[in-house]
Amino acid sequence: MTNDPTQGPPTLGQDELAQIDRYWRAANYLSVGQIYLLDNPLLRESLKVSDVKPRLLGHWGTTPGLNFLYAHLNRIIRRDDLNIIFVCGPGHGGPAVVANTYLEGSYSEFYPEITQDEDGLRRLFRQFSFPGGIPSHASPDTPGSIHEGGELGYALVHAYGAAFDNPDLIVACVVGDGEAETGPLAASWHSNKFLNPVHDGAVLPILHLNGYKIAGPTILGRLGDEEIRKLFEGYGHEVFFVEGDQPGPMHEAMARTFDETFARIRAIQDRARSGAGAERPLWPMIILRSPKGWTGPKEVDGLKTEGFWRSHQVPLSGIATNPAHLAQLEAWMKGYRAEDLFDDKGRLVPDLQALAPQGPRRMGANPNANGGSVRRYLHCPDFRDFAVAVTSPGAHEGEATRVLGTYLRDVMRLNAEARNFRIMGPDETASNRLDAVFEVTDRVWMEPTIPEDVHLSPDGRVMEVLSEHLCQGWLEGYLLTGRHGFFSCYEAFIHIVDSMFNQHAKWLKVSRKIGWRQPIASLNYLLTSHVWRQDHNGFSHQDPGFIDVVANKKADIVRIYLPPDANTLLWVADHCLRTYDRINVIVAGKQPSPQWLDMDSAIKHCRAGIGLWDFASNDEGSEPDLVMACAGDVPTLETLAAVDLLRTHCPALKIRVINVVDLMALQDPRQHPHGLDAREFDGLFTTDKPVIFAYHGYPHLIHRLTYRRANHDNFHVHGFMEEGTTTTPFDMAVINGLDRFHLAIAAIDRVPGLLPAAAHVKQAFQHKLIEHEDYVRRYGDDMPEIKNWVWPSRTPGTA
Amino acid sequence: MTNDPTQGPPTLGQDELAQIDRYWRAANYLSVGQIYLLDNPLLRESLKVSDVKPRLLGHWGTTPGLNFLYAHLNRIIRRDDLNIIFVCGPGHGGPAVVANTYLEGSYSEFYPEITQDEDGLRRLFRQFSFPGGIPSHASPDTPGSIHEGGELGYALVHAYGAAFDNPDLIVACVVGDGEAETGPLAASWHSNKFLNPVHDGAVLPILHLNGYKIAGPTILGRLGDEEIRKLFEGYGHEVFFVEGDQPGPMHEAMARTFDETFARIRAIQDRARSGAGAERPLWPMIILRSPKGWTGPKEVDGLKTEGFWRSHQVPLSGIATNPAHLAQLEAWMKGYRAEDLFDDKGRLVPDLQALAPQGPRRMGANPNANGGSVRRYLHCPDFRDFAVAVTSPGAHEGEATRVLGTYLRDVMRLNAEARNFRIMGPDETASNRLDAVFEVTDRVWMEPTIPEDVHLSPDGRVMEVLSEHLCQGWLEGYLLTGRHGFFSCYEAFIHIVDSMFNQHAKWLKVSRKIGWRQPIASLNYLLTSHVWRQDHNGFSHQDPGFIDVVANKKADIVRIYLPPDANTLLWVADHCLRTYDRINVIVAGKQPSPQWLDMDSAIKHCRAGIGLWDFASNDEGSEPDLVMACAGDVPTLETLAAVDLLRTHCPALKIRVINVVDLMALQDPRQHPHGLDAREFDGLFTTDKPVIFAYHGYPHLIHRLTYRRANHDNFHVHGFMEEGTTTTPFDMAVINGLDRFHLAIAAIDRVPGLLPAAAHVKQAFQHKLIEHEDYVRRYGDDMPEIKNWVWPSRTPGTA
Repeated sequence: MTNDPTQGPPTLGQDELAQIDRYWRAANYLSVGQIYLLDNPLLRESLKVSDVKPRLLGHWGTTPGLNFLYAHLNRIIRRDDLNIIFVCGPGHGGPAVVANTYLEGSYSEFYPEITQDEDGLRRLFRQFSFPGGIPSHASPDTPGSIHEGGELGYALVHAYGAAFDNPDLIVACVVGDGEAETGPLAASWHSNKFLNPVHDGAVLPILHLNGYKIAGPTILGRLGDEEIRKLFEGYGHEVFFVEGDQPGPMHEAMARTFDETFARIRAIQDRARSGAGAERPLWPMIILRSPKGWTGPKEVDGLKTEGFWRSHQVPLSGIATNPAHLAQLEAWMKGYRAEDLFDDKGRLVPDLQALAPQGPRRMGANPNANGGSVRRYLHCPDFRDFAVAVTSPGAHEGEATRVLGTYLRDVMRLNAEARNFRIMGPDETASNRLDAVFEVTDRVWMEPTIPEDVHLSPDGRVMEVLSEHLCQGWLEGYLLTGRHGFFSCYEAFIHIVDSMFNQHAKWLKVSRKIGWRQPIASLNYLLTSHVWRQDHNGFSHQDPGFIDVVANKKADIVRIYLPPDANTLLWVADHCLRTYDRINVIVAGKQPSPQWLDMDSAIKHCRAGIGLWDFASNDEGSEPDLVMACAGDVPTLETLAAVDLLRTHCPALKIRVINVVDLMALQDPRQHPHGLDAREFDGLFTTDKPVIFAYHGYPHLIHRLTYRRANHDNFHVHGFMEEGTTTTPFDMAVINGLDRFHLAIAAIDRVPGLLPAAAHVKQAFQHKLIEHEDYVRRYGDDMPEIKNWVWPSRTPGTA
Repeated sequence: MTNDPTQGPPTLGQDELAQIDRYWRAANYLSVGQIYLLDNPLLRESLKVSDVKPRLLGHWGTTPGLNFLYAHLNRIIRRDDLNIIFVCGPGHGGPAVVANTYLEGSYSEFYPEITQDEDGLRRLFRQFSFPGGIPSHASPDTPGSIHEGGELGYALVHAYGAAFDNPDLIVACVVGDGEAETGPLAASWHSNKFLNPVHDGAVLPILHLNGYKIAGPTILGRLGDEEIRKLFEGYGHEVFFVEGDQPGPMHEAMARTFDETFARIRAIQDRARSGAGAERPLWPMIILRSPKGWTGPKEVDGLKTEGFWRSHQVPLSGIATNPAHLAQLEAWMKGYRAEDLFDDKGRLVPDLQALAPQGPRRMGANPNANGGSVRRYLHCPDFRDFAVAVTSPGAHEGEATRVLGTYLRDVMRLNAEARNFRIMGPDETASNRLDAVFEVTDRVWMEPTIPEDVHLSPDGRVMEVLSEHLCQGWLEGYLLTGRHGFFSCYEAFIHIVDSMFNQHAKWLKVSRKIGWRQPIASLNYLLTSHVWRQDHNGFSHQDPGFIDVVANKKADIVRIYLPPDANTLLWVADHCLRTYDRINVIVAGKQPSPQWLDMDSAIKHCRAGIGLWDFASNDEGSEPDLVMACAGDVPTLETLAAVDLLRTHCPALKIRVINVVDLMALQDPRQHPHGLDAREFDGLFTTDKPVIFAYHGYPHLIHRLTYRRANHDNFHVHGFMEEGTTTTPFDMAVINGLDRFHLAIAAIDRVPGLLPAAAHVKQAFQHKLIEHEDYVRRYGDDMPEIKNWVWPSRTPGTA
């Protein structure tokens, strides 16, 4: 429906309408001031070039629409005492959010130097897009924001993440029509299929069609109302239009539409919560068509500007050299009549102050947007209780992620009442063998079900959707509003969210330096179905490069763990769930494989992050001839098998085996807080002995991390060489040179003096590789001697 | 509309229906055979465990629906002599595409060892998902495929890419309902706003709602018809439903629906091409609701399987140990009655052979799907004609990408008639200063226009949409069908398509080894608005990490170029457009900056990929004290400014300046074909002198590339340290230590013996950094001495 303000009795009284309009003008005035002014904030003197910033950086186009919405949301919050946060999708809408949080007083509470007077106005204007100041978009600095307005596409998915398990919260989410063209945003609309009105909050999407991007029209902006309506009804919404460019009728239409949409939300929730159950309702949404750069210059240099893409950034950009632009800027700003809005001291006049909500109801002060401040403790069971028994290293097989599933099940159970923990995954929770969680919860599902369905319910706490973007975005929104979670994903396809990871890491880096931002729970990835075990799915599913993207980020933000078995995975997962303001990446396989460490050993090993494995080494405290190092479950398996071969065939060789769980332990402590100090590192890796390092990912990362280490030049790293196909698990290792035979051959080649005496051993290993290839191509499976290998193959006591 | 086959006269005669059904059975039989059988392909003997593969890998669920569609497309191709390619979105639908290309004969033409007899059947079955064989999804190996079925989400965007400028082509694009949940796919539906019926081909999207993913229902699969209809009408389609599970009525409904939808396409094209103009029509699409695993086991072990997620992969997986499974498999396969379908020799019977189209009309043999075979030469102007005059290095400013724009304009012009070149960009062609192209073409735009619009038309060849996914996917589809293109993007946001880049690189790696795949044009990225010049947009826009993702890929596929000025950019862009089967990444700024090389020098420099800059060096052929190296436009500027400072203040210091355009030149020639040999490298970088290397991206990449070089331990790399904010351009360099002062200080610190004599110089530089910070925070702009610096500041002839 389009709200025609000429129909029916008016929603706003004349006075109220005039007041809201003045409030809006105040916000617009402050927005223009931020973009342009260094000084003379109230234009008490006529505007001079020196009052204006030398570099004009900012985006006016989206701003008046945001200010308009903010003012009207204030009205409804006050009237109904609502708990609302504002998610500002339009990228560079910073001036609007800052202006409004300043008007409502929250900004000055967070930043006391930005006072509510003329001096404060001057500072407010000056700091915007200015060195040492604040960015041009909503960011961690911005009170009330959980959403960076930089890379576009994630507003709506963040909004839903905030609303899950937040029954009292309503997220007003403005989606720009530029942003609406992105893939992640286009998929996000379906988030309403996962929102349960009984125990989740609500999202009110407001699609702001101002029609233009930076240099042209938007797809949705040029569609007719009927096509748009069908699209969003098809997405499962009841659609309300607010269209126009005349402030008076637009205020009336907006107020009326908010009245109706918030009434719809209340009715939906009342019905669901009074026992009608959790059927998926048609949630309301609003389509706001208002001019881009509304109230700004209609034309600049004779070219259409208001209501056109030319107002996207700074409509008048020639201030320093063009007196006409300076005059036009002054006229534009004076048009807002600041003297009606601010008192002599530069403070918002009392009748307008009264329009803002109070205390934590102000959207800039809503504690949900400072998630750490409402974060509740996550109850974790004692991970030792889930330990697999390991009577001797390698003697038992286990499925690491299946064991982890039992631990996560109990995390889920312990926090069921608090409803502050969710697991996300693109359709893979069971495939990734975490299915023990389905003993205590289901997949959340608001669509119809059939009797054969399993583990689907509106109350489920596992979120599965075939979109890594939605999993990541929901989880970010959930964490940013003070909750906890876990994201399991195929390793290759986590690259789909590289850029979202980057942006979240940047958010954390910045927010850690902002005093009032309380720490939020870490974002925890479990990458399973990893490169070495995607033999069956082929080359497209084989990519360990996400770790490299992660390693580019600041050391205080990221952690990368490669637990080699189930007990180490338990320790790591438990540890990660207890950390905050970090991004933890855990890579662990789901296939049955040997278990190396009992729980006590696992704890000791993981605490150090790296360790010498006595049970596999035969250097017995002396200087070894060779270090065999490994990081990752398959590399560990192949390393131990290689050690087994070497100890059988070259029994005099003194081998030290080192396993790395915490990749950052390799790094120089000046580069990463987890880095071993030089003495410890050299004590493990020696300063001059060859190190054959079997690593899960692309080899260069190990070189990069150990670059400053004394023995670096002797590191020979085997890892993924971008060779893949559909084949067997062991053949995946072979074609990349990570298998036991290649590792053992490398050792023979690298230990000085071993050749030529060991030439026959090397030859035997080379022959094994030929035998392997032949067998695999004949039978489509790995040789029994590979599949059935158990550590140690030697008779105990030999070598 | 739903096609009710009981209404109106039948489309298919009884005989034709029976034949199509048998053809479908043959394809289903071959699909099951591929998933299961090693031997006994026609079940001439009763099925034994040893006939069955030891590892069962494959996906049955989506396959019968794909076979159904393929058979019906064959009918319409034959009847109307249509030019159709098949894009198979459902990830693992490999068995279907392989089965059908085998039945139509194209498979055996590409792979003569897979003969059309019993022996060939045995090989066909055996090779599937088998070491040394073929992957389980449509891949470069698959005849007729332009689309890897691995990472989901890109089917529709590839289909549109193929259809642009291909007026005779119709792309039948099957979209799985799993895939439809992804962001890129959700955005891809809007591609129809960019398809011009006059000179583009058509895409017929077929949304295959079989209802389930790997372990649960799909979002769209559980929506009611009305909601689905609205959604896709909202996306701009006329929607046709085909629903059911009874083969007879389904064949009739499918045939009737194809008749109607292809008639719609013809009518749309006829109308548009007869002069009615290029209004956006409502293109038809089909929603096919058919059971997952259709015709497979209804139940397995008492659990619902056909029409449910349990048939997603291998419905009967216990063959080796469970005799009931073996018997059920045999009954299932026998149910297709192979004896009706294949003759004694194992060849498809003649009346079914006759159902396939002939020659290049077969979808497996359509030359458009082997794009290199129809690739037409791209006419490029002489890039020298666009050279900027450089009378002496550094004396002139230029905007590199603006100059490139004039070159691209002429590429566009020279190929206007051939219609085989497009430029993609997420809304940034003008912002990236390539706007000269708008002198000869427009942005393509099928929506309504208003008089004020600029450079929008249905015939435009610049594609702008605020989705990096769509830009990348369209371009991939366009290249894969034999055309050429160029993708310009903000550097930070190209991470959005990391995973698409990965998949395309994998496609190229594999397809280069397939004899019948002809080379396609390279995928060319221009990353501008790069990290050092996103000072105004802030930290979220500052990320040079895409280069690192690219560097992980195979050396024969990727190239990374960092031209320092306009003339080098011209050479590089021209070179990239002439290459094939590669991914070229060009990073170049759009801001005014000094021009270093005249065209002759630029050509010489770029051909080598790396070079000594005599004009900036003062080592004059002797061994220098210091090498100052740089890669990237801003690092080059700062390096030359540092050299200028050092030569002014430490005139006795012998400095060699090296610039790197082609990053791969740094690498060992054993690792990359562009790598300098050791003698050349050591000749440039010395084997023992300090190298201060100013690099565009994260420093570790330079270490990684030079890891095997003799002088590696003396490389001191300055680059992006993940420090960013909204500030000035020079301050971006300062906070990351890449500016002239930090570089000059590093040089003083690293050259043995320079301190303590040069301590006062170092101190002066440190003081400059303090002065800078103070100035920037006061005035919001860089110091005039920085902005106005021109090489060389020294009086010519000094030092």
